Amino acid sequence: MTVSLAGIARQLQVLQDIEAIKRLKHAYFRCVDTANLAELEGLVHPDVTTCYVGGSYRIELGNRAEFLDMVANAFNAEVACRHQGHHPEIEILDEQEATGIWYLHDVFLNLRERIRTEGTALYRDRYVKQDGRWLIRHQSYERIYEIVDPITTPPNLTAHYLASHGRRLP
Amino acid sequence: MTVSLAGIARQLQVLQDIEAIKRLKHAYFRCVDTANLAELEGLVHPDVTTCYVGGSYRIELGNRAEFLDMVANAFNAEVACRHQGHHPEIEILDEQEATGIWYLHDVFLNLRERIRTEGTALYRDRYVKQDGRWLIRHQSYERIYEIVDPITTPPNLTAHYLASHGRRLP
Amino acid sequence: MTVSLAGIARQLQVLQDIEAIKRLKHAYFRCVDTANLAELEGLVHPDVTTCYVGGSYRIELGNRAEFLDMVANAFNAEVACRHQGHHPEIEILDEQEATGIWYLHDVFLNLRERIRTEGTALYRDRYVKQDGRWLIRHQSYERIYEIVDPITTPPNLTAHYLASHGRRLP
Repeated sequence: MTVSLAGIARQLQVLQDIEAIKRLKHAYFRCVDTANLAELEGLVHPDVTTCYVGGSYRIELGNRAEFLDMVANAFNAEVACRHQGHHPEIEILDEQEATGIWYLHDVFLNLRERIRTEGTALYRDRYVKQDGRWLIRHQSYERIYEIVDPITTPPNLTAHYLASHGRRLP
Repeated sequence: MTVSLAGIARQLQVLQDIEAIKRLKHAYFRCVDTANLAELEGLVHPDVTTCYVGGSYRIELGNRAEFLDMVANAFNAEVACRHQGHHPEIEILDEQEATGIWYLHDVFLNLRERIRTEGTALYRDRYVKQDGRWLIRHQSYERIYEIVDPITTPPNLTAHYLASHGRRLP
Repeated sequence: MTVSLAGIARQLQVLQDIEAIKRLKHAYFRCVDTANLAELEGLVHPDVTTCYVGGSYRIELGNRAEFLDMVANAFNAEVACRHQGHHPEIEILDEQEATGIWYLHDVFLNLRERIRTEGTALYRDRYVKQDGRWLIRHQSYERIYEIVDPITTPPNLTAHYLASHGRRLP
């Protein structure tokens, strides 16, 4: 097997891109659950398309402004939630395009409407590299399962970040 | 420190192998929870050995056919479940052999028998590389904890992938 | 773009360091949940500082001995728990220093006091490399949410590792 410096550099770049995309999506989950819209804006492409298909909802959005607005409304001060994405399967298509599969587990406590939603889903994302940074270009998921329950007694929340950092509902 | 191109290439290969094995196991978890037997077959070695020790069960299997049969029966249309493996500790032993530790969290709703099993476990796997692809050669886990509860009221499943994709029970 | 062997070697080292730090933290979570103090001792720096801010507690510790003592007491034989850290965002500052963000999900069943604590938190760690090995130098987290409930009926534990491996309470 012949090994060239250029070949090594290309293979190294692929691993660096995989790590960068994982980190991008990790920051994404951190930012949604903390309603960090300022940082989130820098993670998604201006033309990002979104298609989240739950059992009890369907969210389709055509660009970043719509996406950030959805997050601000959904991850409001009367919500406690957890969105964690596991098992990344990142495929680098070329120097500027990649795809990714992630396995989500999420719990969403809507304290105002007293609804608890828990489930899993498979994300299928597309990423693009612009000016040396990877961005989310398309994000979608479909449920494996989802369970929706009424919240009969309010949870004993001893810490609640979104209460002070999420958008206040009218 | 002397750096050689061959030395760099070998170290790069180790990182590529680690990433490939993570991705293999990520696909494994996706395939079991979606009862994707066709894809799962390509992830495990024909002679794969399995030893899963739960608190309320023990699964020992001697090859791939037995393993796929177990998955088809266990992940049937009357099950909703989640198996997510975290914290990979992958050790590349040589160019064709590796080991891995994973920290499982799983929830298994057996809707027919009305039993909910939740727990954690440590996987200890062995992997082999054949024709350029890593495969699972041995898979085992032991529980850290397991809790088994009756399902008294059926869960309000608003999405349920296995109901339409899992094997139908007689 | 000019590519030099030394430049490649440096970039490869960064990826190796990121993988080593992930694996360090993965071992950390495995060791705390199994009360493996012997292995845990080798993962943290002798001068490690700890600051864990929960909703219902605050743990501040000044060195490794204090940290190991806290783990031995907290992860005792009357506890069943799960601490899993996701979404690593590792930043290599130089050849001997790095930082990391992790997104924790934890469940802690205190069977003696009959209290269940579940929550999420963001870790902000610092790591140092000594004698070729990365160690945790500072570990801290702050909650995103935390829910504390009484345990009204004891869980049906069909497996319970800490019961036989955790410190026996007086």
